[in-house]
Parts: sequence; C-alpha cells; structure tokens
Amino acid sequence: MKPVVPVLTALAVAGAFATVVHAQSPDRQIKYRQGILQGMGWHMGVLGAMAKGERPYDAQVAARSAKFVHELAEMPWDGFGPGSDAGAPTKAKPEIWKERAKFDKLGQDLRVETAKLASAAGTDLAALRGAVGATGKACSNCHDDFRAK
Amino acid sequence: MKPVVPVLTALAVAGAFATVVHAQSPDRQIKYRQGILQGMGWHMGVLGAMAKGERPYDAQVAARSAKFVHELAEMPWDGFGPGSDAGAPTKAKPEIWKERAKFDKLGQDLRVETAKLASAAGTDLAALRGAVGATGKACSNCHDDFRAK
Repeated sequence: MKPVVPVLTALAVAGAFATVVHAQSPDRQIKYRQGILQGMGWHMGVLGAMAKGERPYDAQVAARSAKFVHELAEMPWDGFGPGSDAGAPTKAKPEIWKERAKFDKLGQDLRVETAKLASAAGTDLAALRGAVGATGKACSNCHDDFRAK
Repeated sequence: MKPVVPVLTALAVAGAFATVVHAQSPDRQIKYRQGILQGMGWHMGVLGAMAKGERPYDAQVAARSAKFVHELAEMPWDGFGPGSDAGAPTKAKPEIWKERAKFDKLGQDLRVETAKLASAAGTDLAALRGAVGATGKACSNCHDDFRAK
C-alpha cells in the first residue's frame, strides 16, 4: 500500500479537486450534464456532417466519433439528480423529475441506438446514415418532451 | 441502402444538429473542451472523495467513474484546434499553441495514467488512492503550464 500522505498532497496539488466537496450541488450537476451533452452534440455534429455530405466520409473518424457518442451516452444521467431541476441556467424541464420512468426509458433507448451507431459508423456511409438518423431521433424523442425550446 | 430523404428529415428533426455548421468555430471548440474536462473533473471528484475518505469506497462506483475518466481523457484534444486560443472565455494559455509538442506529450502522459486508473480503481481503496494521485498529478502537470490560475 502506498503511503497516504503523498497521495493526499498530490490530490491537493491537482486544482481539479476543488470541486470535490460540491460535487453534488445542483449547479455542479447542471454544468456536468450540459458538458457531457455538449460533447455528444460535437461528435454527433461530426457524424451528421458526413451523413449529410457536408464532410467526406472517413471510416476512421466516423468510428472514433461514434465510439465517443456511445461512451458519452452513459454519462449525463448522474447530473440529473434530485434537486437539480433548478440552479445554473438550464433547459431541462421540471417534467424530468416528475416523469422519471419515462425519462429513464428514453435515456435507455438512446443507449441502444448509440451502441448500434458505434458498431455501424466505420462500416460505410450508408450504415453511418441509418445509425446517425436513428440516434438523432432518440435525441429528439427526449428533447421534445424534456428540453425547453 | 436506406433512403436518404427520411434520414435527412430525422437529422433535421434532431435539434442537436444545429451545431454542425459551426462545429469547428473557436467558441464551439472552447465550450466542447470545457464540457469534456468538466466531466473528467466530476468523476475525478467522485474518486478523489473516496481516496480522501470523504465518501465510502465502493468498488463498482469507483470502477465506473474511473472508466469514464479514461474515456473522457481521449476527447478534449479535438477542442484545442488552431485558432481556438481565443473566443469564449477560456483559461487555456496561448502557450498551448506555441509549445504544442509539450502540450501533446502531457496529454499522452495523462492517458497513460487514466488507463492505469481504469484498471486499478475497482480493486481496492489502496489501489484507487495510488492511481488517483498519479492521475491528479498528470492533470496538474498540464494545468501548471497551460491553464491560467
């Protein structure tokens, strides 16, 4: 077992850990989920541009962004905890906390589609198009009900 | 091959794709990298709290957050493209774009440590402590030189 003191010193040194104590505050949750969803939006943007012919299809780039989308799709949910309906500015509707089972189901549906996207994106443009369309639909299914315009 | 028009309709429906055209703008890059790094900070916060005894060690939670940290550690680099030293408010120092090889090396060092973290976090508290300390040190090695206070 490594000595505890040097580890704690290393932790103190890392400025990133200033957030530990307030990790669960509504503000922090809201910013966390927005950061993750923004990351998904970025990589969906890369894939969407290829699907729409605005950017040449590149199997390697597509597979990488699709993998990232699928990985990110597991993450935002930690940021929708109790009490995080208000705090930092947010487009999340209060319905998320009132119709939780429906929200969770749509999140699960998303992950089913991002798994297919991660498998398909590097195959060819046709496979990418189908999977990006289905994933985009899963995004909008949730945004329609649970994100303010 | 699936028909193109319905796919494009699905893409248009998904509000997330409004970002496609400006995917590479400095503002968008800055917000993207900040979102990803914020996500890393969140999960490092979970792990750091366990390492410091502020939260009970839970192998499953630790393994999950460590996996997320490692996945996220692959992602922010796309948001440090040319010209993204200025735009939205950012603590990224201009040195990133002047000493790129050094910055990239520190990013690579981080990924070496997050890989170890992902392997170690679910083993036991001692393993988590060592790996979190080393990852935190990799964070601060880069922040010291390349992030404004």
